Amino acid sequence: DNLRPGHVIIDQDINPYVDQWEAEGIFPAHKVFKLLGNAGFLGVNKPVEYGGLGLDFSYSIAVSEELGNIRCGGIPMAIGVQTDMATPALARFGSTELKKEFLLPSIMGDKVACLGVSEVGAGSDVATIKTNAVREGDEYVVNGGKMWTTNGTQADWMCLLANTSDSPSHKNKSLICLPMNSPGVHIARKIDNMGMRSSDTAEVFFDDVRMPCKNLIGQEGMGFTYQMLQFQEERLWACSNILTMMDNIIQETIQYTRQRKIFKMPVLYHQSVHFRLAELETEIELLRSLLHRSTALYIKCNDVTKLASMAKLKAGRLSREVGDSCLQYWGGMGFTSNVLVSRFYRDARLLSIGGGADEVMLSIICKYMDTLPKK
Amino acid sequence: DNLRPGHVIIDQDINPYVDQWEAEGIFPAHKVFKLLGNAGFLGVNKPVEYGGLGLDFSYSIAVSEELGNIRCGGIPMAIGVQTDMATPALARFGSTELKKEFLLPSIMGDKVACLGVSEVGAGSDVATIKTNAVREGDEYVVNGGKMWTTNGTQADWMCLLANTSDSPSHKNKSLICLPMNSPGVHIARKIDNMGMRSSDTAEVFFDDVRMPCKNLIGQEGMGFTYQMLQFQEERLWACSNILTMMDNIIQETIQYTRQRKIFKMPVLYHQSVHFRLAELETEIELLRSLLHRSTALYIKCNDVTKLASMAKLKAGRLSREVGDSCLQYWGGMGFTSNVLVSRFYRDARLLSIGGGADEVMLSIICKYMDTLPKK
Amino acid sequence: DNLRPGHVIIDQDINPYVDQWEAEGIFPAHKVFKLLGNAGFLGVNKPVEYGGLGLDFSYSIAVSEELGNIRCGGIPMAIGVQTDMATPALARFGSTELKKEFLLPSIMGDKVACLGVSEVGAGSDVATIKTNAVREGDEYVVNGGKMWTTNGTQADWMCLLANTSDSPSHKNKSLICLPMNSPGVHIARKIDNMGMRSSDTAEVFFDDVRMPCKNLIGQEGMGFTYQMLQFQEERLWACSNILTMMDNIIQETIQYTRQRKIFKMPVLYHQSVHFRLAELETEIELLRSLLHRSTALYIKCNDVTKLASMAKLKAGRLSREVGDSCLQYWGGMGFTSNVLVSRFYRDARLLSIGGGADEVMLSIICKYMDTLPKK
Amino acid sequence: DNLRPGHVIIDQDINPYVDQWEAEGIFPAHKVFKLLGNAGFLGVNKPVEYGGLGLDFSYSIAVSEELGNIRCGGIPMAIGVQTDMATPALARFGSTELKKEFLLPSIMGDKVACLGVSEVGAGSDVATIKTNAVREGDEYVVNGGKMWTTNGTQADWMCLLANTSDSPSHKNKSLICLPMNSPGVHIARKIDNMGMRSSDTAEVFFDDVRMPCKNLIGQEGMGFTYQMLQFQEERLWACSNILTMMDNIIQETIQYTRQRKIFKMPVLYHQSVHFRLAELETEIELLRSLLHRSTALYIKCNDVTKLASMAKLKAGRLSREVGDSCLQYWGGMGFTSNVLVSRFYRDARLLSIGGGADEVMLSIICKYMDTLPKK
Repeated sequence: DNLRPGHVIIDQDINPYVDQWEAEGIFPAHKVFKLLGNAGFLGVNKPVEYGGLGLDFSYSIAVSEELGNIRCGGIPMAIGVQTDMATPALARFGSTELKKEFLLPSIMGDKVACLGVSEVGAGSDVATIKTNAVREGDEYVVNGGKMWTTNGTQADWMCLLANTSDSPSHKNKSLICLPMNSPGVHIARKIDNMGMRSSDTAEVFFDDVRMPCKNLIGQEGMGFTYQMLQFQEERLWACSNILTMMDNIIQETIQYTRQRKIFKMPVLYHQSVHFRLAELETEIELLRSLLHRSTALYIKCNDVTKLASMAKLKAGRLSREVGDSCLQYWGGMGFTSNVLVSRFYRDARLLSIGGGADEVMLSIICKYMDTLPKK
Repeated sequence: DNLRPGHVIIDQDINPYVDQWEAEGIFPAHKVFKLLGNAGFLGVNKPVEYGGLGLDFSYSIAVSEELGNIRCGGIPMAIGVQTDMATPALARFGSTELKKEFLLPSIMGDKVACLGVSEVGAGSDVATIKTNAVREGDEYVVNGGKMWTTNGTQADWMCLLANTSDSPSHKNKSLICLPMNSPGVHIARKIDNMGMRSSDTAEVFFDDVRMPCKNLIGQEGMGFTYQMLQFQEERLWACSNILTMMDNIIQETIQYTRQRKIFKMPVLYHQSVHFRLAELETEIELLRSLLHRSTALYIKCNDVTKLASMAKLKAGRLSREVGDSCLQYWGGMGFTSNVLVSRFYRDARLLSIGGGADEVMLSIICKYMDTLPKK
Repeated sequence: DNLRPGHVIIDQDINPYVDQWEAEGIFPAHKVFKLLGNAGFLGVNKPVEYGGLGLDFSYSIAVSEELGNIRCGGIPMAIGVQTDMATPALARFGSTELKKEFLLPSIMGDKVACLGVSEVGAGSDVATIKTNAVREGDEYVVNGGKMWTTNGTQADWMCLLANTSDSPSHKNKSLICLPMNSPGVHIARKIDNMGMRSSDTAEVFFDDVRMPCKNLIGQEGMGFTYQMLQFQEERLWACSNILTMMDNIIQETIQYTRQRKIFKMPVLYHQSVHFRLAELETEIELLRSLLHRSTALYIKCNDVTKLASMAKLKAGRLSREVGDSCLQYWGGMGFTSNVLVSRFYRDARLLSIGGGADEVMLSIICKYMDTLPKK
Repeated sequence: DNLRPGHVIIDQDINPYVDQWEAEGIFPAHKVFKLLGNAGFLGVNKPVEYGGLGLDFSYSIAVSEELGNIRCGGIPMAIGVQTDMATPALARFGSTELKKEFLLPSIMGDKVACLGVSEVGAGSDVATIKTNAVREGDEYVVNGGKMWTTNGTQADWMCLLANTSDSPSHKNKSLICLPMNSPGVHIARKIDNMGMRSSDTAEVFFDDVRMPCKNLIGQEGMGFTYQMLQFQEERLWACSNILTMMDNIIQETIQYTRQRKIFKMPVLYHQSVHFRLAELETEIELLRSLLHRSTALYIKCNDVTKLASMAKLKAGRLSREVGDSCLQYWGGMGFTSNVLVSRFYRDARLLSIGGGADEVMLSIICKYMDTLPKK
């Protein structure tokens, strides 16, 4: 089983069930992750001693690209949370013990991870989170709550960002591995999203949740910094994933409009249609070029925050354009729930919001351009 | 009950149930239409002898504007089908007997109407429909099918466009009143749309459906022409309706972003946000101005096909921009199904497709500009 | 001569010389204004006792529309300064004596007016101007300078905005009629603009310029308020003017592309071309509708600041789109200086900058939407 | 002198004279080219036996990037014609004798080259050119004319595309080296362009111009194919050149708006301004990434027609956006001829027209996407 290539798993074990999981509002993360874990897809750039393949980040980008062939946005996102959003900091900065307890089973597909960053009133503005982890003896006592937590109802553990001191907001945060079955963890409700339907998104509350201090990832107070690093990979990962989806949307639209006739001619043969598709394809290739350039720089240890933020910004905006423009050429069929393009129209809208909204990306770019107002 | 103003009906009898009807995928058209019929809203510009108020079309535009306050797109659309899409030709060209049988009860809210124009493979391209109504003695025998039929599962009668001869495609069509309980009418399935969830959309098949020839509206062979006239009112109606919705989306977004803070400041106070809202408001006022100008010309019996097509085109495109841009400022909340803006994002996407797609509007405008290729 | 209609003056006395005047960087304002004054075009909405026609502002809008047929932007702008930018406040608030001295000859075409508002470092931000008019006895002593002054090298008098006290910036300004031949007025240089070539734009310096206090328009300290009123007419005037120009650009582009072939077909017959022109025409009709609505409200004494600012904003942005898009379809010919479209491309770019930049319009709209940050 | 690096030549020998040459409508090509030739810049990727440096095409891209620092568009374009538009086919397919006569002196800076492709009525549609070169004995007799010929009034020779047979239009063309002092060559007039003012653009007529057949580049009938190859380098070259110009425009705009205040704050610090600059910078980095990717593929002998066409399309459109958006933030100063941004606004408009218009790029992309109508 662990020799099966990714597209076989996607074609045989995932895509046939996507419509059902979308309708149910959840997919069986443990089952799917185990399949992917067996095949080695959950840790391509993670250390071999914890079950990873020890390859560089460009292989993670390649896996993300392949996962874009899943016929919805929710499941790839859930996988991405596991591999490139909740675990990079743990893999880089976590203790051996912590990595054995949380990283290894996550790579094997035995444990499902989630990322606890966003809060009510602090979505993209990470510095203002309110969840606290107060040290009492050799324990942290956690109080607060997290919002928009992907995998939240199924996760075995959370990579939690919490305030561990009263220092300034960029120096008072820590990342902590929090088992989701700890007493005091309440999973309040599954959020009803307009897209990403097969992904479970939870609101999680912490009521005096106690954890051993050894669950701290790396150094106390470095959480914000670690998370910013973690975000770089998340952004490039998301960009790679959506590129494949956009490729597929364009190709399916070409195929459909070649068949569908209007005014005695295939829809595709109307110049406004094939020209528009060529414009979108141009933008897609632009984005792909930036992704490859950023990835190549990243694996050579450059700071690619500016380029990765640009890629994320463009990915979010372009996917909205691609979804909106292509849906149009499907006519009434595009408005039904039966076609990939309408699912993409709903799913992809999240990309400009989650993982740092477009406006946050713009602010980061401005920071690197040195154009922000001086205090 | 018939003295109740529109906003009271909307606030008390419709809006409290919209979430439920959206979840159920249908709303009780007979019940809601009866309420509206009692209050006089289903025939403001229809003749008084058939229960209408005998006012001019600008009053219909005003009603549409009011209906935009319903908190979804599906129900206003269903009402608009009843008042301004399926019945204008009947009111203008139908025989007295026909108007008594179909128009009067539709205005009273006792019968639900649907419009049978679109077909599989002939959505916006009305001239290529394939449904036939063949005259046998004093009956028409109808075969074929209609697609995307709003109100289709609940309707009592359909204003059917069918080919009644082998003449060229603009001269071979007729409009016919077809009772939906006629033998041979099969309502095949409710189409699962990504938006307009409370509106039932059906696929309807006709298998040797027989109707008396007196059910013909006006003259045989004039159906295409009548339908083009009918489309003018539909387009202005839709424009008026969506304008109110866009007003509401802008206002609710202002209110929400005034409360929601990011980077220590209300979201609204970020210049990129209030400037963008000002740009959208500008476009909305532009569209409102064109609607008023077109309506004023129309009630003075001018041909406003060009201006009405422009209004429809802009309404479709602008509502996509408004939905997409405003949703962004709601952050993660905008991606949930609980807020009007995400419903609008899904519902309003139909406007550029239904009732003549954007590309059809462009072709009509080109025709009036005399810029289309000569054969 | 005073019976000659506008289009005859334009066709016979202006358009044949436009290329020459554009090349020379100036047009003979006194000569052209006298012709227009004789024909009654310089005061259609000014009082009859000062030579005007006493009509309402909609007639001024109609004149502006006609002037859009002049084959450059510079000359209409110069005329607009005379009729609707430098004189409205004088006509409404000036004393009889002042109106006899400055308004009457301006309406007759005997005197050329300019407007002294913009300064170096205070273009769109009118409140921060630095020119002072200090009262000494019954004289004002003016020091400072004005920038971007249209008609500046030829003008007989300037409607000057200057600070007349140390009150807060919205209450310390006054409008004053300043004869340009007064001692101490220095016209520093003609600014070399990339467009509006036939219009002379000057930088003017005031070095202890003395004027009688009776040259004050209306009340002292009301200058900012008067100028804001004056701006409303300016904005609607500019919008009307550019609408005709855009109509002409679209029509000439249709004519040219009908002749010019590419890939064996007239350029016009390529769908991407005629669809794009239809989109632009749609936006033009939207703007025209807003202009008519605003004008109708304005002549009934409504505050149309919000709508006029929207019209100005849209006019500026749309004219950039029209120029840029249409020029493309002229191919290499569009890049030459010989065609109207390339002149329009350069001239019309000013509209988003002058008379209150786009960003100022957005701020005004925001103010009316109540979305600006509270202090 | 031949050791001087490019930026020194640009800073000392070119930029100080640009304003003058722009005003004069021509620059001294022989003088400037000799300087560049001495320093080795006119043949970086040309064979060493003809004076080139024998490097790969990526070095040509690097030179183009450096030339973007010249403070106008006309002179870099003239240089690009010499190095990457008129000579690539000669270098690849020309005979030794021909290369000695035309290529070597062009690389040394002793001869100025021009490219004779565009004709009246056949700008972007290369296949429909009408100029003929009819073989008579061992001579070609050329009749016809070329339009929009950059360097046309100063050139010593032209790389001429002409029909040499009656075969189908893609197989009947040849490239020929034509000395411009041949009898029968008439340079009709210098075209008055709205931008690229320092570049001379000529209309050239051929009246029984006779040339030895050995002036043929490569094989007869292969001219269209050679030219299409030549276009690939031209497009990437242009893209590299404009990228530097856009970088400079962005940087100068940042510097200027940091100084210029409006509403008591530097223009730059208004969020709508720095966000917009960040968006433009994002698009610039996207384009740069595509250019690098295309160039890397090209020097490894891949067909990059699709990617190069995408790069050219994006370069043309983005430079229009950059020019238009940045000019806005310069206020009235942006509208003067004194600033780089207004020159760029005029110059860069050519990029979407020349060297294959945007619509031609779209058609090429469509061809590679296989979305064009089948005959």
